[in-house]
Amino acid sequence: MTTAPHTLNTDVAIVGAGPTALFAAFECGMLKLSCVLIDALDSVGGQCAALYPEKPIYDIPAHPAIEGGALIEALEQQIAPFDVPRLLGSRVETLEGHRGDFTLKTARGDIIRAKAVIIAAGAGAFGPNRPPLDGLEAYERTGAVQYYVKKRADFTGKRVVVAGGGDSALDWALSLSDVAEKIYLLHRRDRFRGAPETLSRIEQQIEAGKIEKVVPYQLHALHGTEGVLSTVEVTTLEGASRHIEADALLPFYGLSTDLGPIALWGLDTHRNTVPVTPATLESSTPGIFAIGDVATYPGKLKLILQGFSEGAMAAHAIHAIVHPDTALHFEYSTSKGVPG
Amino acid sequence: MTTAPHTLNTDVAIVGAGPTALFAAFECGMLKLSCVLIDALDSVGGQCAALYPEKPIYDIPAHPAIEGGALIEALEQQIAPFDVPRLLGSRVETLEGHRGDFTLKTARGDIIRAKAVIIAAGAGAFGPNRPPLDGLEAYERTGAVQYYVKKRADFTGKRVVVAGGGDSALDWALSLSDVAEKIYLLHRRDRFRGAPETLSRIEQQIEAGKIEKVVPYQLHALHGTEGVLSTVEVTTLEGASRHIEADALLPFYGLSTDLGPIALWGLDTHRNTVPVTPATLESSTPGIFAIGDVATYPGKLKLILQGFSEGAMAAHAIHAIVHPDTALHFEYSTSKGVPG
Repeated sequence: MTTAPHTLNTDVAIVGAGPTALFAAFECGMLKLSCVLIDALDSVGGQCAALYPEKPIYDIPAHPAIEGGALIEALEQQIAPFDVPRLLGSRVETLEGHRGDFTLKTARGDIIRAKAVIIAAGAGAFGPNRPPLDGLEAYERTGAVQYYVKKRADFTGKRVVVAGGGDSALDWALSLSDVAEKIYLLHRRDRFRGAPETLSRIEQQIEAGKIEKVVPYQLHALHGTEGVLSTVEVTTLEGASRHIEADALLPFYGLSTDLGPIALWGLDTHRNTVPVTPATLESSTPGIFAIGDVATYPGKLKLILQGFSEGAMAAHAIHAIVHPDTALHFEYSTSKGVPG
Repeated sequence: MTTAPHTLNTDVAIVGAGPTALFAAFECGMLKLSCVLIDALDSVGGQCAALYPEKPIYDIPAHPAIEGGALIEALEQQIAPFDVPRLLGSRVETLEGHRGDFTLKTARGDIIRAKAVIIAAGAGAFGPNRPPLDGLEAYERTGAVQYYVKKRADFTGKRVVVAGGGDSALDWALSLSDVAEKIYLLHRRDRFRGAPETLSRIEQQIEAGKIEKVVPYQLHALHGTEGVLSTVEVTTLEGASRHIEADALLPFYGLSTDLGPIALWGLDTHRNTVPVTPATLESSTPGIFAIGDVATYPGKLKLILQGFSEGAMAAHAIHAIVHPDTALHFEYSTSKGVPG
């Protein structure tokens, strides 16, 4: 798409290209604000595309179930009329300037001048937390150990150990229980942390014999040869051990995330997030906004749908910066009319 | 659905059954909160279903274009697993009680006891603002004058006067310009109030000869016989008049809205809206929440997608009321995992 360094003038520089960033680009387009999407990854979609393209998401409004990849495709289609430029494959390193006149530079040397900035960087730079097991790399190379499920079909008829106690572990255990021979759901505690509805569905699959809970156990060792897994050894805190015959291990121990250079841009930050004013999504620095998982305010829920509404609010707030003399009359396209 | 009076105990009484209310029911379901949808209309969908089932909406995230009716169908499908009861065709008249124990009564005599209430009443009771023209009723009866377009096909090949200066007038002028012979876009001012993108598309259709602006004019009289329209007479403020040969008139002069009985429930209200705390969507009365168009807070945008995110936040806040001792660990189903 873009490989040589570019120089670009725009109204709004959007840092990130995940679902929240894409929808913010749509809202900018609707308000006739020009914008550019900038992401360190080589393609748009952020975590949705990179980590779970085939995983169904259930809480996108008016999409009873949509896979990460399909969500990104739909958003791409929605912004297509606005022909939004994108600078992909290079991280934004520096951000300088002030409200109305910012300059961003990427690692590759792209220079973007923008009147306002929307940080939609999700969890920032991210990578999986890897379990400390001997010989792990050999299993990672063969795909016997994976941290992101890119193709559910890879696990058809397999015995799979899913490790972790959070939503990712639960959702993948559920999703793969349809195709795998058996799912072993491993957690070091008795109690899982997930949406109540998810927990009931897990119970149903346990009753159906598709999922077996292995608790409270933690990973101890992998046994096999040349990257072909035969047994996952797990132990309790008291030292009792158990061997589970399995073809694959999926550890969901969270992402190690890092704001990266964003932390150096002079914004107030708090635990790898950027505090913002809820009414505008503006950060402590005027003209710099944050939306989606990277943004925080009282009552914040880390839901994709929240990121969508934050993008709309930020775009409206930015319209007032870019066009200070133009009042914006904009409600939804199906809004009530105005007396003639 | 329900005709005889019902008595019902639930966690959450949702007043309204439009898109925002439906998605709030989904979020309640995800959190294992029971709920009921109550609406004065005979079917779910609110304005979307009643006023513009065939009108495409462009700003629902990940739906490049979706008609009002299809949006409601998708939301219905999304809440289907939760089997949410609905009390339709009778308005909630009274709301009494306190956080944790409310009693609602409908005009028909239904009695609902709920631990919390979400008011998702949109614009409240609504009806079109009708222009003050002699003999209007005859044209309304034949459909020569309509305030909501239920079927675009009715205007195929017709000459249509669309009156009004807001989003509804603009959007319908655009939408019908594909099928009508000619659209006359009538407004008493020179300037229209719409999204910048919409205004450019109007200009394109003017250049293409599909739309003609008639400004600054206002409606003066309708000429025809027995409800068959032949001419719409319009005048300027200075008294200049013009006769437009037309088959139909669509006045979009807004909705007259009314909070109705909601105004009597002891909540603080402001210009037919209910002020809420943005972090929780709770009104001035503990345990009573408001979301969607009826709710207001600093930075509020009247967008359906805002109503969706407000429903999620309200449901989470209510979970703490219904289950005060249970911490809720819930992020989106694709959230990062929790260390095992």
